[in-house]
Amino acid sequence: MKFLTGNEHKFREVRGLAEQFGFHLEWANLSLPEIRGSLREVALAKARDAFERVGPVICEDSGFFVEDLNGFPGEYSKWVFQKLGCEGIVRLAKGSRACFRTVAVYYDGRPLVASGEIWGEVVEPRGSGGFGYDPIFLPDGHSRTFAEDPLYKLENSHRFRAFRTLFKLLKKQESPV
Amino acid sequence: MKFLTGNEHKFREVRGLAEQFGFHLEWANLSLPEIRGSLREVALAKARDAFERVGPVICEDSGFFVEDLNGFPGEYSKWVFQKLGCEGIVRLAKGSRACFRTVAVYYDGRPLVASGEIWGEVVEPRGSGGFGYDPIFLPDGHSRTFAEDPLYKLENSHRFRAFRTLFKLLKKQESPV
Repeated sequence: MKFLTGNEHKFREVRGLAEQFGFHLEWANLSLPEIRGSLREVALAKARDAFERVGPVICEDSGFFVEDLNGFPGEYSKWVFQKLGCEGIVRLAKGSRACFRTVAVYYDGRPLVASGEIWGEVVEPRGSGGFGYDPIFLPDGHSRTFAEDPLYKLENSHRFRAFRTLFKLLKKQESPV
Repeated sequence: MKFLTGNEHKFREVRGLAEQFGFHLEWANLSLPEIRGSLREVALAKARDAFERVGPVICEDSGFFVEDLNGFPGEYSKWVFQKLGCEGIVRLAKGSRACFRTVAVYYDGRPLVASGEIWGEVVEPRGSGGFGYDPIFLPDGHSRTFAEDPLYKLENSHRFRAFRTLFKLLKKQESPV
């Protein structure tokens, strides 16, 4: 099964989890045009598009939603990160509630969709693991940021939660009762 | 000729100029899905899409590019404005150089493309005319923001410059030497 992403961090995060469910993921590093839309719309469009080229495929779209900024940077998190970095978000919204969200999609002609999220707080950057906004995200009930504790992230993140649900759905499909 | 936009301010700004060139513009207020891309890519895609539905059409895409923010909010100016407002940009980049840019397109099966820009400085919000980032944009060589002096904007803006060039190109096409 192919996992479509341009981001090696994401591939690594998901590959290990897939193996726990008995799925072997290959990395499909295609560059496809992205539409503008919600995480769900973007992930579904990418999956359909990639399916035409490489067959059955898994992909995802994720975002960082800051409550005091009306959900910014949200669907455009990657692009905003390239422009403003963690620093810009901290300057605008230190102390705000925030969440990471992932919508994960499996597509083989028909879609399977699952989502996951994790809430926390925007803090001054700490740590060097992970990527993107990980240094400024302090998950609820934890004392270290995602970047300070990448192992914690691996098993508690929005991405982990979305893909765990997706792989469970896929398992069910493979072995109907 | 139809002018495609969801923004009545833009329609008003361009209609008067069109008439000076002898073109009568009708407002096509269609809602079309937007791709992600440069101003040029977005404007061209919108124009082709709209042409399929309403025939020969004019449209544009504009953005506000702040130098100290690596061109942010740029192609996503409208969306960022809805999230952060003028206040967010001022907080991040007061005093920075910035420019407004427009790419204007006429499409009748083949495209005509023109662009325009105007440079200035990011300042604290002043004035209530115009729309979007107009209150925080002080054009070079002028003492009032676009929002304080909408008449000045009308005849000096990125949009004015792009469409003046576009209408000149169209005139030339209509009456080749």
